[in-house]
Amino acid sequence: MMGRTLVIGGARSGKSAYAKALAESVAEHRVFIATAEPIDLEMEERIARHRADRDRTWSTVEEPVELIDAIAAHASSDRSVLVDCLTLWLSNLLHRGRDVESAAGGLVSGLTSLQGHVILVSNEVGLGLVPDNPAGRVFRDAQGRLNQDVAAVCDRVYLVTAGLPLLLKG
Amino acid sequence: MMGRTLVIGGARSGKSAYAKALAESVAEHRVFIATAEPIDLEMEERIARHRADRDRTWSTVEEPVELIDAIAAHASSDRSVLVDCLTLWLSNLLHRGRDVESAAGGLVSGLTSLQGHVILVSNEVGLGLVPDNPAGRVFRDAQGRLNQDVAAVCDRVYLVTAGLPLLLKG
Amino acid sequence: MMGRTLVIGGARSGKSAYAKALAESVAEHRVFIATAEPIDLEMEERIARHRADRDRTWSTVEEPVELIDAIAAHASSDRSVLVDCLTLWLSNLLHRGRDVESAAGGLVSGLTSLQGHVILVSNEVGLGLVPDNPAGRVFRDAQGRLNQDVAAVCDRVYLVTAGLPLLLKG
Repeated sequence: MMGRTLVIGGARSGKSAYAKALAESVAEHRVFIATAEPIDLEMEERIARHRADRDRTWSTVEEPVELIDAIAAHASSDRSVLVDCLTLWLSNLLHRGRDVESAAGGLVSGLTSLQGHVILVSNEVGLGLVPDNPAGRVFRDAQGRLNQDVAAVCDRVYLVTAGLPLLLKG
Repeated sequence: MMGRTLVIGGARSGKSAYAKALAESVAEHRVFIATAEPIDLEMEERIARHRADRDRTWSTVEEPVELIDAIAAHASSDRSVLVDCLTLWLSNLLHRGRDVESAAGGLVSGLTSLQGHVILVSNEVGLGLVPDNPAGRVFRDAQGRLNQDVAAVCDRVYLVTAGLPLLLKG
Repeated sequence: MMGRTLVIGGARSGKSAYAKALAESVAEHRVFIATAEPIDLEMEERIARHRADRDRTWSTVEEPVELIDAIAAHASSDRSVLVDCLTLWLSNLLHRGRDVESAAGGLVSGLTSLQGHVILVSNEVGLGLVPDNPAGRVFRDAQGRLNQDVAAVCDRVYLVTAGLPLLLKG
């Protein structure tokens, strides 16, 4: 179970819980990299609820933008690093006007040179109708490309539906 | 093929037809529990069309809210009970201001104590962009949690795409 | 690998690239049937980008509406025909007020009488919330039925997520 794992799923699919269980199965020390920013009450409550779900074998790092730096700073062969999630990270990049293609390229190349267990959670958002607004289409396209690029450098990829993982690669 | 089966799919994925075929393969007597309410012409036509698809080996029960009571009243080892679908049931609960968490808990615990073949149809709705409006997000979250909770107590779970079932559990 | 193949996926799922690789693996001569119409700049750029991805072993045919005629005119046992995609074709039919059911029926019956490798790309659009507007619901329903009908006459059906194919049939 060494290496990089991508866990893809929809909203409330159980992807985070599955990724957490994976992270706990591979190492006794775990680092949770949260990309969420507490910009409103709904998000604050969600972050607090997720934090309460993790016990003391976990340490939590908040990093909304410089993701590969945070992963590289914590990855090592005796612990697992869980990134939750790439979708909020992408959203943070777009809101700040960052160059998404360049950031995604940096993440992908950085991931391939790391040691240790890295588990990344991401949303699939492309299975509805075409969004009405251009910003929605830009986000959807960027998320789809990011999932493809990260999946290509992962050893295992799971699609989670109703809490049930389906192995797509590995 | 005894036990509980969840059939998940998108809109017009063929999930209802697949669930119906499953129900017909396990028992000669079948009960269809319809959660749809004919609130408009579009829905009335859909209900009539679905009813016309079922022959006389089926009896139909309409129950928009008190779902586990309807299932319990009809489940037995010599017949199959098909619930179509959990998504409309959830929508009915929310429109009435019912406590969804409590209703979902009652459904799940009730299901585990029943005898017979019970097949439940549900939508996956979490694979598009984040909905613009809070009500959409509430619905999406509730549907995702309900699917996870029901899947956890089912013996078999299928994901249907373009009429083709994929076994997720069982 | 003779016969008909349907490749289903979401937006930016990698479905087109996977279908292209399939088409290249089965025959040295390939015909690309593009259903896209360059109605705006966004679409023009996308079409040009896709065309640039294909080398000289490919010839390109643009046919937004009379799809089965275009397929029949090019299908033969020594080449592969790639249709990209059924979703834009469906959209073109609806915009022109064509009878979708009849056109879909013509496509399906035409496909079953052809020789050669035909690979069709289509979107899954039914895994989000119910669309707010009737036109969106009509499109989603028509796309779901079309995917079911085409899948039923294909020898192989794949669902592509993050560039990774999952065999649903075949």
